[in-house]
Amino acid sequence: MSMDKSLDVLFYPKSVAVIGASHMPEKVGNAIMRSITLKFSGKIYAVNVKGGEMAVNGKRFQVYRSIKEIPDNIDVAVIAVPAKFVPAVIDECGEKGVKSAVVISAGFKEAEKSELEEEVVRRARKWRIRLVGPNCLGVTNLENGFDCNFNPPERQARPPFGKIAFMSQSGAFGAAILDWAANHRIGMSKFISLGNMADLDESDFMKYLGDDEKTGVITGYIEGVKNGRKFLETARRGTLKKPVVILKSGRTEAGAKAAASHTGSLAGSYAIYKAAFEQTGILEAKSMRQLFNYAKALAVQKPAKGDRVAIVTNGGGAGVMMSDGLLERGLKMTELTEETMRKFEEDVKAGRLPRHMSYRNPIDVIGDAPASRYEIAMRYALEDENVDALVVIALFQSPALGEGIVEKVGEMQKYRKPIVFVAPGGEFPEKMARRIEKSGVPVFETVEDGVDAIYALVKYGEWLRETGNYELFI
Amino acid sequence: MSMDKSLDVLFYPKSVAVIGASHMPEKVGNAIMRSITLKFSGKIYAVNVKGGEMAVNGKRFQVYRSIKEIPDNIDVAVIAVPAKFVPAVIDECGEKGVKSAVVISAGFKEAEKSELEEEVVRRARKWRIRLVGPNCLGVTNLENGFDCNFNPPERQARPPFGKIAFMSQSGAFGAAILDWAANHRIGMSKFISLGNMADLDESDFMKYLGDDEKTGVITGYIEGVKNGRKFLETARRGTLKKPVVILKSGRTEAGAKAAASHTGSLAGSYAIYKAAFEQTGILEAKSMRQLFNYAKALAVQKPAKGDRVAIVTNGGGAGVMMSDGLLERGLKMTELTEETMRKFEEDVKAGRLPRHMSYRNPIDVIGDAPASRYEIAMRYALEDENVDALVVIALFQSPALGEGIVEKVGEMQKYRKPIVFVAPGGEFPEKMARRIEKSGVPVFETVEDGVDAIYALVKYGEWLRETGNYELFI
Repeated sequence: MSMDKSLDVLFYPKSVAVIGASHMPEKVGNAIMRSITLKFSGKIYAVNVKGGEMAVNGKRFQVYRSIKEIPDNIDVAVIAVPAKFVPAVIDECGEKGVKSAVVISAGFKEAEKSELEEEVVRRARKWRIRLVGPNCLGVTNLENGFDCNFNPPERQARPPFGKIAFMSQSGAFGAAILDWAANHRIGMSKFISLGNMADLDESDFMKYLGDDEKTGVITGYIEGVKNGRKFLETARRGTLKKPVVILKSGRTEAGAKAAASHTGSLAGSYAIYKAAFEQTGILEAKSMRQLFNYAKALAVQKPAKGDRVAIVTNGGGAGVMMSDGLLERGLKMTELTEETMRKFEEDVKAGRLPRHMSYRNPIDVIGDAPASRYEIAMRYALEDENVDALVVIALFQSPALGEGIVEKVGEMQKYRKPIVFVAPGGEFPEKMARRIEKSGVPVFETVEDGVDAIYALVKYGEWLRETGNYELFI
Repeated sequence: MSMDKSLDVLFYPKSVAVIGASHMPEKVGNAIMRSITLKFSGKIYAVNVKGGEMAVNGKRFQVYRSIKEIPDNIDVAVIAVPAKFVPAVIDECGEKGVKSAVVISAGFKEAEKSELEEEVVRRARKWRIRLVGPNCLGVTNLENGFDCNFNPPERQARPPFGKIAFMSQSGAFGAAILDWAANHRIGMSKFISLGNMADLDESDFMKYLGDDEKTGVITGYIEGVKNGRKFLETARRGTLKKPVVILKSGRTEAGAKAAASHTGSLAGSYAIYKAAFEQTGILEAKSMRQLFNYAKALAVQKPAKGDRVAIVTNGGGAGVMMSDGLLERGLKMTELTEETMRKFEEDVKAGRLPRHMSYRNPIDVIGDAPASRYEIAMRYALEDENVDALVVIALFQSPALGEGIVEKVGEMQKYRKPIVFVAPGGEFPEKMARRIEKSGVPVFETVEDGVDAIYALVKYGEWLRETGNYELFI
């Protein structure tokens, strides 16, 4: 693995300087200090031309007038000074030997100040400093708490550490995603707000995240790629290492117009993007929820060996909806083997399974099913060679279904086939979901979310098989 | 309005007998007693051939051996005795003068006991008793707490009283929906689990709910209609009174097969249903979430006069996604009038609005927008004659956006144009959402949910205009 060290230091700095640090709560430079001092255990230095002292989260900081005054090496500079001062700050960073800079400051290309932005890049190149931004929310590493996001935690929660990396060409949307993921207990590894991408762009981070051991799935919101050829080459390699899921907006004429006035990306036609995603094995999500349904499934479950799906459910209606959902996305409801049918038949005859259950696919264990009945049905389905992936639907509103299902589902992981769990409803299903997810089986709130999950596992499996990488990956 | 009184009594009984009431907690007849005694203030009588006494929710009940022993008139009988006893129980109900019966008991047509079911219907007809079920979860009236649902509240919460009625051909899915709606604070008027529909079917309830003043939107989950002609006629009248949203499953070959083994509905081709929905103005939802996105919007907002939508957002990316979503559903991003553009221009010049905001549609008030800036943008958009509906997107992760937005959005209702609010994220947006919804503006968690909401308001408006009913309705 050829890990780009200049990017690695960006997420794992030993020492950081916040340039533009402020004691005034309403300032961005104050918010960044509050974020960065919450969990990060590396060394943190405050810099502001005014000097003095400041206190953040109960810690006192001497404020250096310049980064050059700091009596220590600095790996990363987080820059939140007015745009016009950024070029000079970059020079100081260069003299200090800083490796990477996160430029939070706005007022560049997005404010029709392209020349100023170019000047910043020129100076950064001269000093071999890699840049994130400008005009961004910075980076957040959920593993070590290195977080220069300026939205305060009471407005924007941070998700737990997990396997999904997310990069965003929209800072505000990225912030909403972090907040949303935290609320839905979706674990994230790293977040990157790409900003104007004056230097580092979506392809650079896709490459880095592809090699990052802490990232299991790469996700991204993009309006347009900066360099088409670079993107294609990076994606082609990246998707063989791990799944890449992209939400591309600006798909319609109105959307493309809006994107042009937002990030200035002249998107090119959506058809070109679509073709690029297909050629490189990128999974395209059409909405925020779909992006995370895909990612959540891919983060914990193996890609499927084929597209033949079985369903086990205690609600007939939910089974019908799931069947529709799978077929409408081009997947197959499998036909169970004769052998499996015989196993079910014998259990019904012996009274181990109820007479009126249906054991054609969907396997309907009926509303009064206890966990033990689910166990039999899941086992027979997973032992069936015609089954590539299993959806388990549990309507926990029936008191017959006890908490024993949690353990039973966990045990099914031994079959090494992807399993997706769907548990619609309110508080009780949510409580069960949290416990089931600890065993590595992802749980979804609605049938349609579950369809997304299975779709992603099947499609990524297809891509790996097409490229001859499935066996390696598994 | 010709209200069917035999159905009205089903939701507003003065006195109810639970036949098969039991003191044993694991029995359905016990669970029903627990549900019905929680909030319902009508008279409740327990019936069980064993007689004796029982205590439920701290109340003591004499247990009558037969409904005929009860020294009072009985409006509704809730029947939860073994299937084979139901015909005799119906006769007793008839002698007692019962008007409607809810047959919870299973073991009829769904268990290949069609003759037994026909016998029950024959006897009910003789006594002029209307039947719900058999094999159902019964009915729940959220207004008066009349609730014979046998899932206990700790497994299946009940939603707050509100304007959405829901009927379901799947009991288990209906239960999940109630639990889910409770968790998402979606207000419901009445819930009907249709069961085997031996007597009353989806059309009967559609007709009743069409006349029900407490119901603003009729929603339903169906696998197949019982009587096509009756359904078409009822729907045609119903949709002129209020919106009807249906989730029809069994749309695909696999789904139809699953439906046949679930409710035995020989669905007929989906194309026929689709055409029927279009001809009668029924809005078809493809998923559970979509069903409630449609219903939630239609329950509180006016249908739109046209399909020209404006967006106000503090996040460019979310505006791009919303533009895509609207266009992909066949709606239009409106072009603001010259006059509106001039108003924005002047405010920008005068420094009341920021220089780099975009006031083409989507109107991007930028990440640092306070509520006052939203107020100007919303007002100008709603005053514009080219705007039929407004989407407001607020990314509350930015601390610049204060709680003042709540009041401002509420004020915008005076323009009498439909407004949909989108606030993605976690706890803080949810808190704001609850407050905004009090003013009658529905709030959605994701861009795609908001697209659904606007779509429903536009499509229902179109239906009313096509049929010449828009002015009457508004």
